[in-house]
Amino acid sequence: MDRITLEDIKFMNLALREAYRAKGKTLPNPAVGAVVVKDGRVISTGYHKRAGLPHAEVVALERAGDRARGARIYVTLEPCNHYGRTPPCTEKIIRSGVKEVVIGVRDPNPEASGGVERLKGAGIEVKVGVLKKRCLELIDDFTVNVLKNRAFLNLKIASTLDGRIADRNGNSKWITNEASRRYVQRLRSYHNGVMVGIGTVLKDNPKLTVRDFPVERQPFAVVVDRELRIPTNCYLVKERAKELIVVTSQESLLTYKAGILKDLGVRLLPVFDLGDNLDLKEALEKLKSEVGIYSVLCEGGSRLAYSLLSENLVDKLTLFYSPKIVGNEGVPMFGGNVGELPQEEKFKLIRSSRFYSDTLLVFIDRELYYKGLQT
Amino acid sequence: MDRITLEDIKFMNLALREAYRAKGKTLPNPAVGAVVVKDGRVISTGYHKRAGLPHAEVVALERAGDRARGARIYVTLEPCNHYGRTPPCTEKIIRSGVKEVVIGVRDPNPEASGGVERLKGAGIEVKVGVLKKRCLELIDDFTVNVLKNRAFLNLKIASTLDGRIADRNGNSKWITNEASRRYVQRLRSYHNGVMVGIGTVLKDNPKLTVRDFPVERQPFAVVVDRELRIPTNCYLVKERAKELIVVTSQESLLTYKAGILKDLGVRLLPVFDLGDNLDLKEALEKLKSEVGIYSVLCEGGSRLAYSLLSENLVDKLTLFYSPKIVGNEGVPMFGGNVGELPQEEKFKLIRSSRFYSDTLLVFIDRELYYKGLQT
Repeated sequence: MDRITLEDIKFMNLALREAYRAKGKTLPNPAVGAVVVKDGRVISTGYHKRAGLPHAEVVALERAGDRARGARIYVTLEPCNHYGRTPPCTEKIIRSGVKEVVIGVRDPNPEASGGVERLKGAGIEVKVGVLKKRCLELIDDFTVNVLKNRAFLNLKIASTLDGRIADRNGNSKWITNEASRRYVQRLRSYHNGVMVGIGTVLKDNPKLTVRDFPVERQPFAVVVDRELRIPTNCYLVKERAKELIVVTSQESLLTYKAGILKDLGVRLLPVFDLGDNLDLKEALEKLKSEVGIYSVLCEGGSRLAYSLLSENLVDKLTLFYSPKIVGNEGVPMFGGNVGELPQEEKFKLIRSSRFYSDTLLVFIDRELYYKGLQT
Repeated sequence: MDRITLEDIKFMNLALREAYRAKGKTLPNPAVGAVVVKDGRVISTGYHKRAGLPHAEVVALERAGDRARGARIYVTLEPCNHYGRTPPCTEKIIRSGVKEVVIGVRDPNPEASGGVERLKGAGIEVKVGVLKKRCLELIDDFTVNVLKNRAFLNLKIASTLDGRIADRNGNSKWITNEASRRYVQRLRSYHNGVMVGIGTVLKDNPKLTVRDFPVERQPFAVVVDRELRIPTNCYLVKERAKELIVVTSQESLLTYKAGILKDLGVRLLPVFDLGDNLDLKEALEKLKSEVGIYSVLCEGGSRLAYSLLSENLVDKLTLFYSPKIVGNEGVPMFGGNVGELPQEEKFKLIRSSRFYSDTLLVFIDRELYYKGLQT
């Protein structure tokens, strides 16, 4: 274990902030940030803007130019060591003359890793693991893409203190406060797909767009709708048909409604029908491989949340608790029986924050958490 | 608003820590802590140990002796200005020669207040409101005793993320982890009564004692048991009869079982039967006036929690969330319908912390919170 200094934490924090500027926009690449530092002062910063554009460390080093000589560079992710769409970052670093590289986490992609060894081989000092957990969270989507070969799934739930997402009349407006809802807008911008079940479409007629924050492209809207009950006059079909993906059963593809939706420009994604519900693992695999959706924010409802959980597809759980209580007739967070009280924890709490009296808890799937820590 | 310095925060924090050494042991008095400071250094500290013993500021000033002259004293609560069991603290402070008094909160008891005015009148500088919210939490029990003339009620719930206190088989061992459970022991020591419903007694046969922490006296055990179903061979009756209070209906007092329990040394506290459940407001009033229980930690179950909530008796809500999920057949946090989703928040989040992957959220009744802030 390398010795981590306060300075390391300060500058890696800055590199993380840089990276988050493009979180959700770099897919299928991971978001990465970099900072070049000399004599305790920032020379330059950089982040990876979009797949095909230069990587974070290259941006930062080019901005630094000759001043990079003898400097230290902070990168949230291990610099790549292979020829992809851009030449290996390791070579750029070696040529730049920096004398030390501080890395957040190693690359979970075996194809791209080996950067640390290459840098060390060139006589550069390398330190790994600064703010490791936060750097892991930054690339959680990418890690799942690589390790599980499917879209990453972040399940977002806004709940009362007693675990209800709506009262007994189905009313859920507004459980959480304005500050929380604003944060959800930002959260959407970190993903390139926003998913809901058909029940939510029928009840709320949602837009599923990013508001309040500028985005170059809205995330895709994904609706899980086994029997194609989606109304042709709902907002998503009427206004966002080209950005709408409806996950449905293979059987439903043959229906009259399927034809209508296709004519309207809606893309149908058929998956296997498991009887109780659709094969959502297949859906996440196809969203990645066929549509290019690498990172999905699921916003409910109760049934879909239950299906995802019981199929073990919840990689991340983003939970808002509002200080309200509706009692045992409210709509439960998960619309099904998950099982007996387990001995083991299902999720690891990685972060929590407050929005006035609302509490945000962020969890990561336990297995994924420990896998990430091993890299 | 007085200007609050970093030094103020540091020393008031220390005064708070002093006060918490006796939290729950000073009843019916509030817990209070004091620190005497000169030239930025601590001269002495003190806390109120027990009703009848000297107040915190008196303890600290006596320890400081002549060194108090020209010093500053921090007190979590406004010094009293009346002759109770001890002479007014304001006189002691004036005689001590301190030149400045920094106070956390004013006394909610009109009888004891006026301290600030008396001190100012004597030419002493007075600052009020340092770490006000934390000083208010310290005396939340006392505030409710004074304002509502009943025992303070802190409802503690250990829940899964989806708001369930047990799985569908009623199994609740162990929802939270060891660190959380240890904190609950400390929490018990801050109260002089620990309450459960009869269902919990029948299911778990609890001890309701403080373990792991030294206490001079165990808190009373309070069981809400309308029909006197409590088994005579349960732990509370067999081992803690003298410390056991059973809240029951007036009708139950006439039963054979009532006679047996009384013979065993159990104290029965009859209250009005509202039909659906007992009059728990009356219970909290009588616990204070007849038994001397000023501060109650209620640990469930679902039915009792629901009754307390719907009667508006939950002054404080202490909520543990463990990263487990059991689904919609688990036992709900509140065993009844509370109502539609309210616009207004019922509780104010005043504090949160983590015990590994467990999250602790502490709320205070919204109305009480704003009343407190006004003092």
